[in-house]
Amino acid sequence: MEKLDPWGSNTITNYEKAFEEFGVQKLSNNLKLDHHLFKRNIILAHRDFDKIIKRIKEKKSFIQMTGIASSGKLHLGHKIDIDLFVFFKKYNSKNYFGICDIDGYVSRDKIKSLEEAKKYAVENLAHALALGVDKKDISLQSKKEPRYYEFAFELSKKITKNMFEAVYGHLNLGKVSANLLQYADILHPQLKEYEGKMPSLTSIGLDQDPHAKLTRDLSRRLGYNLEVPSFLYFKHQSGLLKDKKMSASEQDTAIFLDDSESEIKRKINKSFTGGKDTLKEQKEKGGNLSICKVYEILMFHDPSDANSKKVARLCKAGAPCKDCKDVCTDFLTKMLKKHQSKLKTTRKIAEKMVFNRKI
Amino acid sequence: MEKLDPWGSNTITNYEKAFEEFGVQKLSNNLKLDHHLFKRNIILAHRDFDKIIKRIKEKKSFIQMTGIASSGKLHLGHKIDIDLFVFFKKYNSKNYFGICDIDGYVSRDKIKSLEEAKKYAVENLAHALALGVDKKDISLQSKKEPRYYEFAFELSKKITKNMFEAVYGHLNLGKVSANLLQYADILHPQLKEYEGKMPSLTSIGLDQDPHAKLTRDLSRRLGYNLEVPSFLYFKHQSGLLKDKKMSASEQDTAIFLDDSESEIKRKINKSFTGGKDTLKEQKEKGGNLSICKVYEILMFHDPSDANSKKVARLCKAGAPCKDCKDVCTDFLTKMLKKHQSKLKTTRKIAEKMVFNRKI
Repeated sequence: MEKLDPWGSNTITNYEKAFEEFGVQKLSNNLKLDHHLFKRNIILAHRDFDKIIKRIKEKKSFIQMTGIASSGKLHLGHKIDIDLFVFFKKYNSKNYFGICDIDGYVSRDKIKSLEEAKKYAVENLAHALALGVDKKDISLQSKKEPRYYEFAFELSKKITKNMFEAVYGHLNLGKVSANLLQYADILHPQLKEYEGKMPSLTSIGLDQDPHAKLTRDLSRRLGYNLEVPSFLYFKHQSGLLKDKKMSASEQDTAIFLDDSESEIKRKINKSFTGGKDTLKEQKEKGGNLSICKVYEILMFHDPSDANSKKVARLCKAGAPCKDCKDVCTDFLTKMLKKHQSKLKTTRKIAEKMVFNRKI
Repeated sequence: MEKLDPWGSNTITNYEKAFEEFGVQKLSNNLKLDHHLFKRNIILAHRDFDKIIKRIKEKKSFIQMTGIASSGKLHLGHKIDIDLFVFFKKYNSKNYFGICDIDGYVSRDKIKSLEEAKKYAVENLAHALALGVDKKDISLQSKKEPRYYEFAFELSKKITKNMFEAVYGHLNLGKVSANLLQYADILHPQLKEYEGKMPSLTSIGLDQDPHAKLTRDLSRRLGYNLEVPSFLYFKHQSGLLKDKKMSASEQDTAIFLDDSESEIKRKINKSFTGGKDTLKEQKEKGGNLSICKVYEILMFHDPSDANSKKVARLCKAGAPCKDCKDVCTDFLTKMLKKHQSKLKTTRKIAEKMVFNRKI
């Protein structure tokens, strides 16, 4: 059985099998929206996403809630989360973008102080704002309304130790706290003090499904009149190196959103591709696109098909991998330069939001 | 070994033994203040109360923090807590009187909804205000600043499952939440966003010592510069009936702060005394004052010695218990009538504080 530990590895090798075992549904074509993450099957499964599609068709509002634990720098893997959030705004959604600083501190051993989590919160928030999340849509965990915290604590009465251990396999009080906050993050927008009962959407990796299941279960048992929240599941972007996940703790597995041009170039040149061992063999047989990190990056991040088609063509024709890497480096550099040009402004806003004096 | 379960029975029969086992210190005469609860040895033990006495002598401030879980009506047993809190105000203390509505809900099975806890919060708050607690000194758990909640969650990273189980013997996620809130209640006044580092005092029953110990331990390990909090321990007032504790769940064991004159009379007449089986024997030998509930009430609640001395005299002289009961009923009726006359006003204030619209 696939191990689903939200704090563990995020490599799920057999998606079809995982669907079956966890009871999530494969995303059928009639539930796909006009976005490259849908079209390219990067968003691949759901729970109750049809409720959201119905709201969109009826031009009615729905809640979208996503969040990032403030425990490290953001890389390309996080970017699709944010891109998707920004994409859904056009459908008249009520937006809650969680900057989860308390969660980041209490659930991660490596984060040694709340101060450290808050520094990541500033950075992550600056990036989210630069990528198009609105300041008013930020749900900063350490600066919420009393009702939010009350609700998080309230939830603890509805979860038993056994339930928690059955889902997560272990019990650690910091992680219990982080989970209560996460359940509250997803469910609180439906309280009468916020938007009221409404379909809600959260996009996560399949490895986060234990959270989703428990959150959905809670929504039914709480005694509030809540819509069971919907979830979209996306494939995780893999790491740049062979058999690695994209992880902030291994610098060369990831392109960070604040990587410099030379860093991007260096990492892409070092990245794993489907190229053959010799140039001669490559020329004769072509490369293997399906395992190529360069191609994967374009599929995940380049909405236009031009670059990925070009890379596919080059690969099939047996061009040296360096040619494709140049295409990718060029694309990433332009994209991230544009993004980074906004950071100076958004970082100031973020600092104010996280470190303001109000207690 | 005495069982110390903060949610269980509060009857501790052998105080001297308990002192030894739990490492609390007996209150020596040089640490006693001019209040009948000190003079009559109802406050009988402490941890670091000398730090508070030192501050009082130096005319410096200290924090005092006490709290009541919103899980039932207040009775005489709660009143001494509040009386003591009001007494300490004259020493220039920084006051935090906790109305613990979230705690009341999450830690008690019998409280079925947060709404129910909040109704008790209104009632308890109304009584506290009527007894002389200032509105500005109320620390209402569901209406605190984000920093307070953040701090409560923060604490979860410093407690392990094993620590919790070792102290409490069981682990229940609602009670974990309640405890995090209680630790935060006691420690947050020392954060820089509140009063800053300062000796702090909390008065509790000896059965609450597991909380005290873990809170003191936390204060040392948190990484903040905090004074280890001081505690005073008082004897619990026993129930009106034989071998019963004073408990809101058994109506006739307790005089509630809102009991009517006829209720008071009925309960006192029914209460257990040290009277002999026959009036004849009583006349010959006198009663046993040391087990008499009527005498206990006067010792706990009547600051003047007149009534208790009178009862002692009557008892020794072999007067019928009815005479002493009349003295007690008379005292209680007057005291509570005066108290209850303020409730109409304070209840309105309390309702506004608990149920205001701000989220």
